[in-house]
Amino acid sequence: MRENNMIVILNFKCYKEAMGEKALTLARICEQISQEYSIKMAVAPQHPDIYRISSSVDIPVYAQHIDPIEVGSHTGYVLPECVAEAGACGTLLNHSEKRMKLADIERAIERARDVGLKTVVCTNNIPTTKAAATLLPDFVAVEPPELIGTGVAVSKANPEVVRGSVKAVKEIAPNVNVLCGAGITTGEDFKRAVELGAEGILLASGIVKAKDQREALESLVKWL
Amino acid sequence: MRENNMIVILNFKCYKEAMGEKALTLARICEQISQEYSIKMAVAPQHPDIYRISSSVDIPVYAQHIDPIEVGSHTGYVLPECVAEAGACGTLLNHSEKRMKLADIERAIERARDVGLKTVVCTNNIPTTKAAATLLPDFVAVEPPELIGTGVAVSKANPEVVRGSVKAVKEIAPNVNVLCGAGITTGEDFKRAVELGAEGILLASGIVKAKDQREALESLVKWL
Amino acid sequence: MRENNMIVILNFKCYKEAMGEKALTLARICEQISQEYSIKMAVAPQHPDIYRISSSVDIPVYAQHIDPIEVGSHTGYVLPECVAEAGACGTLLNHSEKRMKLADIERAIERARDVGLKTVVCTNNIPTTKAAATLLPDFVAVEPPELIGTGVAVSKANPEVVRGSVKAVKEIAPNVNVLCGAGITTGEDFKRAVELGAEGILLASGIVKAKDQREALESLVKWL
Amino acid sequence: MRENNMIVILNFKCYKEAMGEKALTLARICEQISQEYSIKMAVAPQHPDIYRISSSVDIPVYAQHIDPIEVGSHTGYVLPECVAEAGACGTLLNHSEKRMKLADIERAIERARDVGLKTVVCTNNIPTTKAAATLLPDFVAVEPPELIGTGVAVSKANPEVVRGSVKAVKEIAPNVNVLCGAGITTGEDFKRAVELGAEGILLASGIVKAKDQREALESLVKWL
Repeated sequence: MRENNMIVILNFKCYKEAMGEKALTLARICEQISQEYSIKMAVAPQHPDIYRISSSVDIPVYAQHIDPIEVGSHTGYVLPECVAEAGACGTLLNHSEKRMKLADIERAIERARDVGLKTVVCTNNIPTTKAAATLLPDFVAVEPPELIGTGVAVSKANPEVVRGSVKAVKEIAPNVNVLCGAGITTGEDFKRAVELGAEGILLASGIVKAKDQREALESLVKWL
Repeated sequence: MRENNMIVILNFKCYKEAMGEKALTLARICEQISQEYSIKMAVAPQHPDIYRISSSVDIPVYAQHIDPIEVGSHTGYVLPECVAEAGACGTLLNHSEKRMKLADIERAIERARDVGLKTVVCTNNIPTTKAAATLLPDFVAVEPPELIGTGVAVSKANPEVVRGSVKAVKEIAPNVNVLCGAGITTGEDFKRAVELGAEGILLASGIVKAKDQREALESLVKWL
Repeated sequence: MRENNMIVILNFKCYKEAMGEKALTLARICEQISQEYSIKMAVAPQHPDIYRISSSVDIPVYAQHIDPIEVGSHTGYVLPECVAEAGACGTLLNHSEKRMKLADIERAIERARDVGLKTVVCTNNIPTTKAAATLLPDFVAVEPPELIGTGVAVSKANPEVVRGSVKAVKEIAPNVNVLCGAGITTGEDFKRAVELGAEGILLASGIVKAKDQREALESLVKWL
Repeated sequence: MRENNMIVILNFKCYKEAMGEKALTLARICEQISQEYSIKMAVAPQHPDIYRISSSVDIPVYAQHIDPIEVGSHTGYVLPECVAEAGACGTLLNHSEKRMKLADIERAIERARDVGLKTVVCTNNIPTTKAAATLLPDFVAVEPPELIGTGVAVSKANPEVVRGSVKAVKEIAPNVNVLCGAGITTGEDFKRAVELGAEGILLASGIVKAKDQREALESLVKWL
């Protein structure tokens, strides 16, 4: 079954409902849902929370960003090596809230590979998805910025951007997996994304800010 | 004695000698030196290492940077609340490797105050030191960029910038403390900085990359 | 009379009503108003329009921004020397739409001085106004960003920020002149700004986007 | 003959030898060489010099950069419409000295198309060249940053990056033309670039800073 390879990545952003002690609690919920429903789940907490989560919870942890730098004099930057040593196994790159220069995305993917981090490059439309795919990250996550945080799922509001992104990526780089983000909240949104060819989803506010985070996650994945 | 109030802040930058497990080891050395020599010491590790150090070592931990943001949708940014909850008690701002916009420095100082973080604003010359002092951070650290990482101490190579910075700050904001950075490596450099009016020092490569970090720290503070 | 020294600077931004041929027309209107009402007026067009205006109209031309660079390899940047040779006599710096790093503002003021350009540093509140004043630009223009482009004048909505800015600047650097921006549209707004201590105003949409630009300008200055 | 379609673009950067009055002189030299040797030449002066050159010299003028913005409140930015109205017929994008975000390159190409500007996207290696090609600019100019300004031609020092870039671009987007930059100074460098498949060159210091700019240009193109 195709769905077995689905991945669900939950971006904690800088939400207070997913920070420090609460980040740990939410990661534990994700871990349980992942086991109960046999679905691959990963969490992307803030940098100061990576170690705390990775050392307590058995779930893949992604950084929200890394900088395309080497060890050295880079006060305040995010070194791939440090993120990896803190227990992350991957990183988001070029999120719509943290857009990166083209040359930096390319270099960051290379640096991530050096230290064993998987990469999820976020993009905003079909042309940038295509461009990102040529750089051979592990995942491309297409998220039309106008839908992020709205609860209006891209898979419903703009199915063509998902279908077109999958098609474009598979032509250029068949091994790059396509995730679908922006507005995904319900199981129906998720299902629709899968039907359009997405191989996973990138979530945030729909789950993190739900009254009952566990219930929101369950209703998202139980159809699988 | 004036020196009792001296503070020594060690910036770990993105050096491999002060990352992950090694960051913890170096923080422990700083803790011991601090106790043995009755000197206030603080460490500024990378963000993913803050929690690990603050929960194991009894020494003030500073972030290397925070962003002037509130909780919310800021993927990849450094939220003051998160840094504080991870155990930091302060933060560097506007380091020469991570210069900030004027409006962002002002806002970041305010946000740091909201969450109980002390602030060290780095500056590059007397005019920017003066400008930073008007924003009432806890510390201003003057570091001529051309001397950073050289081992040539600002207190020796350019005493006037230290003396002039202290004078300018005290006229504008007597409660703001002046630190001296850039090239400080030896006890003599430190002593000279104190004679010029500095109320502490900001260190990095001279200690972190020393063959024997403990010895380097001891030789720095034993004259006090 | 104090008002004789008043300066009115009109920022053309990237408005289509003040670009190319239309920029020239608007600059000519400003020139005429300036002569008829004996008031100092200056215009700040887009960079490609500086030469065209300065070589045809006898009115001070300001750039909207310069970069803190020297001649050399800086493709796409704004060199102070080039702006000056094109006929500008000054520049805005740190506009709310183009915030600059503290170290860059300081350096840009110095570079502007090197090539004979006057400087107007824009700020967003009293603390940043104070910080900017220590850097000794020719003008500081305080503009609370939440009022820019609203037609709600800062001199009416937040008189304290104008009065407080004037007081703060005069304590630190009596020779720095204080302009008042954000939402100024009518003669009454301008008058109120002067009563609060402003020594001029920085305008934009209220005039540029007026149905009749000349009439809008006349109604602004005729009370003087 | 293939060479008939060759284009030579001369980037004036922020060099004093190609600014203001001197920019005009150099553009006239390019115009003459272009006619004498029947080769397409274009110049890329600083923004304040675009109008002055385009209104006096009959040679294509490129901007060094545009911002991916629409008309409106963007003080200090480079509006595509303004550059076009000043007489430019194209623009460089993502030069190694002015790297752009991936999403901004995509948007800038679209905005350039809206106003009739041709686009030259600069890239630093084969992967970023490939990514740029998917965005369908008119030209991609591959310039390994370590060779820029050295006088060591990429076509000699690293022929594989030129050959590989041409191959990659033609597979993805056959209508995108490939330029070769970085270190090109002599006719031999140019010839070698053409043999490797380049359809033109992007030049800067080798010509602008030559003792005799005309002679340098002539020796560059006379072999054609």
